[in-house]
Amino acid sequence: MTRDALIQQIRQKKTFLCTGLDPDLDKMPKYFVEEEEDPIYEFNKLIVEATADHCVAYKPNSAFYEAYGLSGLESLEKTVRYIKINYPEHLVIADSKRGDIGNTSTMYAKAMYKRLNADAVTVNPYMGSDSVTPFLQFEGKWAIILSLTSNPGAADFEQLRVDGKELYLHVIEACKKWGSVENMMFVVGATRAEQFQEIRRVIPDHFLLVPGVGAQGGNLADVCRYGMTKDVGLLVNASRSIIYASNGKDFAEKAGLEAKKIAEEMAAIMDGN
Amino acid sequence: MTRDALIQQIRQKKTFLCTGLDPDLDKMPKYFVEEEEDPIYEFNKLIVEATADHCVAYKPNSAFYEAYGLSGLESLEKTVRYIKINYPEHLVIADSKRGDIGNTSTMYAKAMYKRLNADAVTVNPYMGSDSVTPFLQFEGKWAIILSLTSNPGAADFEQLRVDGKELYLHVIEACKKWGSVENMMFVVGATRAEQFQEIRRVIPDHFLLVPGVGAQGGNLADVCRYGMTKDVGLLVNASRSIIYASNGKDFAEKAGLEAKKIAEEMAAIMDGN
Repeated sequence: MTRDALIQQIRQKKTFLCTGLDPDLDKMPKYFVEEEEDPIYEFNKLIVEATADHCVAYKPNSAFYEAYGLSGLESLEKTVRYIKINYPEHLVIADSKRGDIGNTSTMYAKAMYKRLNADAVTVNPYMGSDSVTPFLQFEGKWAIILSLTSNPGAADFEQLRVDGKELYLHVIEACKKWGSVENMMFVVGATRAEQFQEIRRVIPDHFLLVPGVGAQGGNLADVCRYGMTKDVGLLVNASRSIIYASNGKDFAEKAGLEAKKIAEEMAAIMDGN
Repeated sequence: MTRDALIQQIRQKKTFLCTGLDPDLDKMPKYFVEEEEDPIYEFNKLIVEATADHCVAYKPNSAFYEAYGLSGLESLEKTVRYIKINYPEHLVIADSKRGDIGNTSTMYAKAMYKRLNADAVTVNPYMGSDSVTPFLQFEGKWAIILSLTSNPGAADFEQLRVDGKELYLHVIEACKKWGSVENMMFVVGATRAEQFQEIRRVIPDHFLLVPGVGAQGGNLADVCRYGMTKDVGLLVNASRSIIYASNGKDFAEKAGLEAKKIAEEMAAIMDGN
């Protein structure tokens, strides 16, 4: 998907919500898990149907599928296929945090872009240039670089000060040279709203993928105040607060309502800007 | 597998070789790929049979299996099952370079330790403590932390100087507090022999997983001179130089001979120490 197509979709639908598809059989409605042959896929399908009008992207996190072995990975493949066929305008982000030495990163890129047919992959930059650049060699595909994440451990290394500025800023400065605004985004946690201004000075135009709104405590208004650009430039993710909005028979309906609520907040912010 | 069991195996067999199982259909003998129904699994099986006496560990890199989609992942599961049944004394390292926020890392740990039944997982430390510690909660299982890797990109971030020393040393110092010599190892590339002394000052007793000998140009004698401890403390990996030693009908035999050659070099070094 091109950057223009993404921006156009955001403007048309007045939302920049990304719905995280992190299925956990222990958190899904019990009756549903017992009834369905492939509960992960069927759950995702109903969540996608209920939320598609309110979001522009879906982000399955690989860990939640790998934890169920081959059957989980089959559910993931089916989920991406379902989205690609029925909602082809939505960006599909494989949140797999991959990265290895050069030729091995190419294998991961093929796995995610070609086999799984995702539009984007989250990439861990620790191993440097040759671990990142293979993810930038595929037309219309995106590498989304982990920069400043929303978890407590971000303080351990990402925020170490190197020559007067934090490591994650070095990461952003280096990575932006390897790609462009057309094939690279950055992960910046919503719990770090105060850092968005500094980040925007380094990458004024790149899209940011922002997890941590909702269950993790990040604030949408703050993220937009400091992170939004003229092209919006944000994909704000919510996972648990949407997909587990209800644990009953109305789980899909409630997920749709929760996504709608966030999307309306986003529309109000876009109108105000 | 316990640390004692690993050390005992190393002493008995006089080898600390880890064989990397990175199957690439384009590099395997053509006749073999055409003949076999599951060439990846059958290839691995023959390589394992031929090399088992000369190594103490196997390290499949997940990327090479994920690149072939579900069928590749099935070949990986079958490979690990085959090793666990026939060569239970060998350590199986899932070289998957995983890491995510806390509860999600737990999902990855379950995927690798429980579903796949690997003894160890390589872990990317970029996201800090809560991304690493979930891999340390499983009895008899190991987290192997990426520290100083063997690729050119290691210079980009791993070797940035932070408060007078390089980032990878900060990573090692922080991580060693979260685990112990019984459940944590570190990846240090063989191409960095000159850094082993400094690393050994920080972690005198931890096992190091050392890639980069052979195809990547690292030197075994140098690695041992600076990295070996009284308990050996090294797992030195070779992948391509062993598994693609021949492209003909004798590929397994030649792989065995190559592994034997490295193991003999290791035995000589162990005898000399």
